[in-house]
Amino acid sequence: MSIFNPVDHPHRRYNPLTDQWILVSPHRAKRPWQGQQESPALETLPSHDPDCFLCPGNTRVTGDVNPDYTHTYVFTNDFAALMPDTPAAPESEDPLMRCQGARGTSRVICFSPDHSKTLPQLSLAALEAVVKTWQEQSAELGKTYPWVQVFENKGAAMGCSNPHPHGQVWANSFLPNEAEREDRLQRDYLQQHGSPMLVDYVQRELADGSRTVVETEHWLAVVPYWAAWPFETLLLPKAPVLRLTGLTDDQRSDLALALKKLTSRYDNLFQCSFPYSMGWHGAPFTDGDHTHWQLHAHFYPPLLRSASVRKFMVGYEMLAETQRDLTAEQAAERLRAVSDIHYRDAE
Amino acid sequence: MSIFNPVDHPHRRYNPLTDQWILVSPHRAKRPWQGQQESPALETLPSHDPDCFLCPGNTRVTGDVNPDYTHTYVFTNDFAALMPDTPAAPESEDPLMRCQGARGTSRVICFSPDHSKTLPQLSLAALEAVVKTWQEQSAELGKTYPWVQVFENKGAAMGCSNPHPHGQVWANSFLPNEAEREDRLQRDYLQQHGSPMLVDYVQRELADGSRTVVETEHWLAVVPYWAAWPFETLLLPKAPVLRLTGLTDDQRSDLALALKKLTSRYDNLFQCSFPYSMGWHGAPFTDGDHTHWQLHAHFYPPLLRSASVRKFMVGYEMLAETQRDLTAEQAAERLRAVSDIHYRDAE
Ligand SMILES: O=P(O)(O)O[C@H]1O[C@H](CO)[C@@H](O)[C@H](O)[C@H]1O
Ligand SMILES: O=P(O)(O)O[C@H]1O[C@H](CO)[C@@H](O)[C@H](O)[C@H]1O
Repeated sequence: MSIFNPVDHPHRRYNPLTDQWILVSPHRAKRPWQGQQESPALETLPSHDPDCFLCPGNTRVTGDVNPDYTHTYVFTNDFAALMPDTPAAPESEDPLMRCQGARGTSRVICFSPDHSKTLPQLSLAALEAVVKTWQEQSAELGKTYPWVQVFENKGAAMGCSNPHPHGQVWANSFLPNEAEREDRLQRDYLQQHGSPMLVDYVQRELADGSRTVVETEHWLAVVPYWAAWPFETLLLPKAPVLRLTGLTDDQRSDLALALKKLTSRYDNLFQCSFPYSMGWHGAPFTDGDHTHWQLHAHFYPPLLRSASVRKFMVGYEMLAETQRDLTAEQAAERLRAVSDIHYRDAE
Repeated sequence: MSIFNPVDHPHRRYNPLTDQWILVSPHRAKRPWQGQQESPALETLPSHDPDCFLCPGNTRVTGDVNPDYTHTYVFTNDFAALMPDTPAAPESEDPLMRCQGARGTSRVICFSPDHSKTLPQLSLAALEAVVKTWQEQSAELGKTYPWVQVFENKGAAMGCSNPHPHGQVWANSFLPNEAEREDRLQRDYLQQHGSPMLVDYVQRELADGSRTVVETEHWLAVVPYWAAWPFETLLLPKAPVLRLTGLTDDQRSDLALALKKLTSRYDNLFQCSFPYSMGWHGAPFTDGDHTHWQLHAHFYPPLLRSASVRKFMVGYEMLAETQRDLTAEQAAERLRAVSDIHYRDAE
């Protein structure tokens, strides 16, 4: 029997943030693909689309008219998944049919008045305005709700129904699954190891470098050791920070730069507008000690081999365990091999 | 404030098999959809396709030639995610970069020589041959591996790259995440309540009926109280059964009928070949007591509103919590309202 080599041999890696394993099958990237093709966004869109619900001055489904906004614009989702005044469900401890109340709100965050742009194509000032909006929303909603989920679905492949650059913020009266799990696992880690999990992790990755994709003065983006999606990344401040609202001005303006570089590398990889879901996790807005928390963003992009071939998390993945076809180190190398200047910047 | 009504008001439901919550937002089904359209499989395929890797007598990528099989045909996946002879990874208990060895095998199961058919279009005898093949594979691989995952990815939307009716079986030298979790949670339930979780659950659903989709002599298919996917179902034997290999002859032939009815209802809902991932969970092939287990199949179909509009599990779902737009009871009612005879059977 030959010697184990992570680039050739299937193995499992452990995600300490979710307590889940990932099956890595690096030899499998060679198989042919005859299945569904994605439709990459390659065309250039107009700066203003009269039929877009999100462009300045346009009328939405509800009849509301968008203002002539110049940076970002936030409004309550016309089809919000959560409402602030839902009557409380009768709490039931029936072990087989357990039900619980859920209140909250969903808002849409337009990143820019320009219909044709995506995050990597915004100026650093415009990107900083997006970060500021994320902070303001978190601060405001965090007064009422324990969990404020800031996220972006980008691209048709990720269920985004409008190419106008926008994200969302959903506030919850409860800690959702992923928040509860990260809270618990980070708390356990601090208790066991005496320092916050992701503060330790950032040091390890800074020292190693093989999974690094972008490094700026205050930020590090890596393909985490336990990545599930082919080109998944984890974006972390180098210093301890609990929440988006706790960033210094320097960290905030440097975040604009880190975001620009990371999303440019993504688009450059397959020369297309790279689809993903991304979002922020930070300490919940609850009482008590949160020193086990470290702010971070997850980027979950589905593409695997080209602008039109994605990874499907189906069958075995849904019923047994997440599986990937290349190592985290291979993915990071591919993302480092392309420029951090957007391929359309020269146009 | 009005009184809580699960058909109008957002709430959370608890999945006792995964220890996860699901956010139910029933009022949200009304929102318009301008995003990605799926390409439903509506055309009639030939019974034999000379370019198909799975049809009898054809040559595969590897040069191997398929035999002239008449019922089912099993072969090792030409691009298997797992291999039986992988050298063991050095076990590492590093809390941030934990790695583990993984051995196993992946096989393809052709359900029928007829390229044009899907499960609901097979005869009961042919469906029983599929169940027998699942049993044989489980028995054989269970001698070597603790976990044998039988599953089917159906339709381009679920990453299936070939319409020829087929499923897969992946055997694992480890208990994958989902298996480990169901094992643990079912064991805890038995300890706390004195009877197996899903044996209790089947009784509750038989008595209730509001989530029932198909009932035969020995089997029950329900949209589980905690369903995540819009038309997700759970298929259970009414009597305690540990594994596929433990079915009586009567239970097995009746399973062919239950599968035919369930998959026909699925196809009839939007008059298309309904995409899904499905698979079986039963007691692992390990020593020790397994009385906490009850055999079951999960069906995870992505379609939401029509043959071309699916539910995307993205953004909020990936970062916070699974969210659905109709209640389990509403979904079951829709599936009961269509016939259990396939819409193409009259053709
Ligand atoms: O093995 P297949 O059918 O080529 O591939 C499909 O099923 C596998 C098992 O669920 C997944 O890992 C792949 O992402 C999917 O495309
Ligand atoms: O709110 P949108 O953009 O219409 O919808 C999209 O994002 C939501 C939040 O992740 C998901 O629940 C939907 O399935 C998805 O299509």
